[in-house]
Amino acid sequence: MKLRELAEQFGLELRGDPEHQVDGVGTLEGATPSQISFLANPSYATQLEHTAAGAVVVAEANAAQCKGNALIADDPYLAYARIATLFDHRPAAPAGIHPSAVIDPQASIAENVSIGANVVVGAGSEIAEGCTLHPGVVVGTDCRLGPGCLLYPNVTLSHGVRLGARVILHPGVVIGADGFGIAFARTNDGGHWEKVPQLGGVSLGDDCEIGANSCIDRGAVEDTVLEEDVRVDNLVQIGHNVRIGAHTAIAGGAAIAGSARIGRYCLLAGRSGVNGHVTIADRTTIGADSNVMKDVTEPGTTWNSNLPAQPMVRWQRIFASLLRLEQLNKRIRTLEKAQAQTNTGNSEDND
Amino acid sequence: MKLRELAEQFGLELRGDPEHQVDGVGTLEGATPSQISFLANPSYATQLEHTAAGAVVVAEANAAQCKGNALIADDPYLAYARIATLFDHRPAAPAGIHPSAVIDPQASIAENVSIGANVVVGAGSEIAEGCTLHPGVVVGTDCRLGPGCLLYPNVTLSHGVRLGARVILHPGVVIGADGFGIAFARTNDGGHWEKVPQLGGVSLGDDCEIGANSCIDRGAVEDTVLEEDVRVDNLVQIGHNVRIGAHTAIAGGAAIAGSARIGRYCLLAGRSGVNGHVTIADRTTIGADSNVMKDVTEPGTTWNSNLPAQPMVRWQRIFASLLRLEQLNKRIRTLEKAQAQTNTGNSEDND
Amino acid sequence: MKLRELAEQFGLELRGDPEHQVDGVGTLEGATPSQISFLANPSYATQLEHTAAGAVVVAEANAAQCKGNALIADDPYLAYARIATLFDHRPAAPAGIHPSAVIDPQASIAENVSIGANVVVGAGSEIAEGCTLHPGVVVGTDCRLGPGCLLYPNVTLSHGVRLGARVILHPGVVIGADGFGIAFARTNDGGHWEKVPQLGGVSLGDDCEIGANSCIDRGAVEDTVLEEDVRVDNLVQIGHNVRIGAHTAIAGGAAIAGSARIGRYCLLAGRSGVNGHVTIADRTTIGADSNVMKDVTEPGTTWNSNLPAQPMVRWQRIFASLLRLEQLNKRIRTLEKAQAQTNTGNSEDND
Repeated sequence: MKLRELAEQFGLELRGDPEHQVDGVGTLEGATPSQISFLANPSYATQLEHTAAGAVVVAEANAAQCKGNALIADDPYLAYARIATLFDHRPAAPAGIHPSAVIDPQASIAENVSIGANVVVGAGSEIAEGCTLHPGVVVGTDCRLGPGCLLYPNVTLSHGVRLGARVILHPGVVIGADGFGIAFARTNDGGHWEKVPQLGGVSLGDDCEIGANSCIDRGAVEDTVLEEDVRVDNLVQIGHNVRIGAHTAIAGGAAIAGSARIGRYCLLAGRSGVNGHVTIADRTTIGADSNVMKDVTEPGTTWNSNLPAQPMVRWQRIFASLLRLEQLNKRIRTLEKAQAQTNTGNSEDND
Repeated sequence: MKLRELAEQFGLELRGDPEHQVDGVGTLEGATPSQISFLANPSYATQLEHTAAGAVVVAEANAAQCKGNALIADDPYLAYARIATLFDHRPAAPAGIHPSAVIDPQASIAENVSIGANVVVGAGSEIAEGCTLHPGVVVGTDCRLGPGCLLYPNVTLSHGVRLGARVILHPGVVIGADGFGIAFARTNDGGHWEKVPQLGGVSLGDDCEIGANSCIDRGAVEDTVLEEDVRVDNLVQIGHNVRIGAHTAIAGGAAIAGSARIGRYCLLAGRSGVNGHVTIADRTTIGADSNVMKDVTEPGTTWNSNLPAQPMVRWQRIFASLLRLEQLNKRIRTLEKAQAQTNTGNSEDND
Repeated sequence: MKLRELAEQFGLELRGDPEHQVDGVGTLEGATPSQISFLANPSYATQLEHTAAGAVVVAEANAAQCKGNALIADDPYLAYARIATLFDHRPAAPAGIHPSAVIDPQASIAENVSIGANVVVGAGSEIAEGCTLHPGVVVGTDCRLGPGCLLYPNVTLSHGVRLGARVILHPGVVIGADGFGIAFARTNDGGHWEKVPQLGGVSLGDDCEIGANSCIDRGAVEDTVLEEDVRVDNLVQIGHNVRIGAHTAIAGGAAIAGSARIGRYCLLAGRSGVNGHVTIADRTTIGADSNVMKDVTEPGTTWNSNLPAQPMVRWQRIFASLLRLEQLNKRIRTLEKAQAQTNTGNSEDND
């Protein structure tokens, strides 16, 4: 690709050599003259001076620091993302249905799909056009996959799971396993658990993407629902009956307990947690390793409770002090009383 | 089902129309007149007034608030759980062994099982009557599955895993992988890790249920053991040599480190953690995102260390104060000394 | 094995009966006379007096407490690990390629491998000699496995993943899924996410071992890299572009966010977290459930921020006090000012 062509195709302003050619991407530090790079985080701007990249996608504010060719973008990261799709040479999955796939005769498979080796599709399931099911995918009965879904290897859909269009499920994802519903049956000798049937389903809207080995449980009564364009990272747990609004993003290792309701355009950082039955307003941001334990009612707020690690000995002292906080409080109250008395005494002196 | 029949079958008192028919379940908010609902959490009792449900399972204490038909239960959630099993229409797995399954000739498979497509069962393994192995399940060598076990797709059992009766393993569960045993070999150039052979097995008692993508490691020397009726949610890690007492329940994202011993009837909330070699008494409750770092010796206690998320700016100030706790402590001590001195001074004044 | 033979083979000093025979391992508490045991943690030394083990591997410091046969080792745990390999009788995977495996004609498979049932290997991938791929493993296109790799069931390698020699991947591991790269496209009606192509690969050095259901994402631009002998436990998330130095060990449930750089010989305890773009020096230790949120520049330090669980009521009071820390601070300042005033007042009195 010539830089001229990139500028035209993506509506960017080019400063530099329009005939320069690039054939891949690189980091500012590692890129060669045949690669394109980008500056999304201004704190790395000093790298602009030394990069060997054939061109850099930058914001106007950083363009002057660019020694070589620059493509000026309002949002350099977004512009880069779009350009990079040109250089994504991942091999296309082979068209058609692999002979080892086991498709139930009562499943309905559209014409132009790719169904890999050892895929299993259950009775009553519908796979729309343009879907790719990589090897080892298991689709249960009565599932519905919208057009253009992409299921990577060893994904499991239980029965009755519905995916919108262009949903991406990374390897090992499990959608529609039973929620964690157990009822305790008290008996004379102590008691035991009984399973609460999980009768709801799961529905994912268009353009959802779920990271490797993440789990989304089916609802207990009604469905677990992710609206469109919800983006979930790896090893995330989403419990039964949860509802997540459109365009919300959830980073790795987070866990959303059952019946939580999360708004639209929320951001949940890595290892964050949301308690069961909690409701979170639109555009809420939750910090890394922070736990939301009650409703967030005002939209657009940021919440946090993480503890940045400290040198161990220092942390031990802080934690020991934390355990004595109540006594500290009492000692201050004692001092305050004494001070009040002193003041009275002093006032008397002054009389 | 007529309400009369439900009342009889489950030993509940019916208040309302005995001939009213229901054919499914619904939430109080969403149920139609042909659905049955329940009130387990009294804080939702106001929903009783507006529900359109054909009947509601309630406790005596809330029965008066019920406008329509009511089924009175000592434990409405448990009664609902039992009723709901009637409406669980998940498709039965096909009987018999799918031709694509790979069963070692030295495995022993009971008569009435369901073994799905692409299942693999290794030599010396025994699958008892009534077991269901969904597609993609891999059972290693020398495993033993009790009657009525239900293994969902893509579950892996390593060699020598023993399951009791009616064990349920949700998709992607891994039982019997090597525990995390490594020994550091110091050498002149720094050193390296050597693997400690993991020679124990794993044993799960009757009625255990393990959530999607959870892992239970094999023991290093002796077995990792879950007694009967242990209920584990999704994405839970259970390390080698752990022992978990009967009827304990562990919610999503929790992690139990190696050689921990957890009592019977314990409840571990989501994202909780238990340190290695820690022992926890019976009927202990651990709060969400809380870490047990030393033994809990008294049965029936509740432990916690979670931090409910706060508005970010407030949390930053609190954390900054936390880091200065020791200085705070010193300042108070200084004040206390000064106060003591003042008191002495004042006493002298009073002389 | 006679103890005499073990002492010779592993270079240990034997105190006791050289002709005594052992055929397995046991814990100090559970071992029989035909089993060998070990004492690694001196706090269990009292168990030496009552063990029935046929021999115990101990350090010189604890040898005197040993009533029976003792094998003296500088590092008893390491010596035990080596001895125990003699008693690891896990069944060898069958040689050759199972007929149900689906090997792309353009894949390159060395002679003496074991490829199990339903394994899939994509075009352009190379499997070196001595590799074992258990049932259900999916290897994408253009992967390269060094000699002696061991992939347990249902492991997924995406395209372009490179493993060194003797890499062990436990069941359900996912290597090379897309990193969590999304760019927000603001529009008049709010906006949506666009996927940032993940164009890098993943490279694991020799002797890496990755625990069950853990995930290592491919790089966004350059590769995600684990150097040799990195040991990772179960359910660990390693984001895109992360680099981990040789001999680092990471325990269960930890999560390393994108672009973090972790040094050599680091230890990350269970459920710990590392923020994105953070750099951690060599030989750093991170405590359980602790979050590293900024660079650790000095090698060999230990960091922590975990909160050991407390009895619930106590913890609630402590947390309530924590939320009032700022006011506490203000009250102390008020007291300090008053004290200063009092002092001035007293001085005046003394005049």
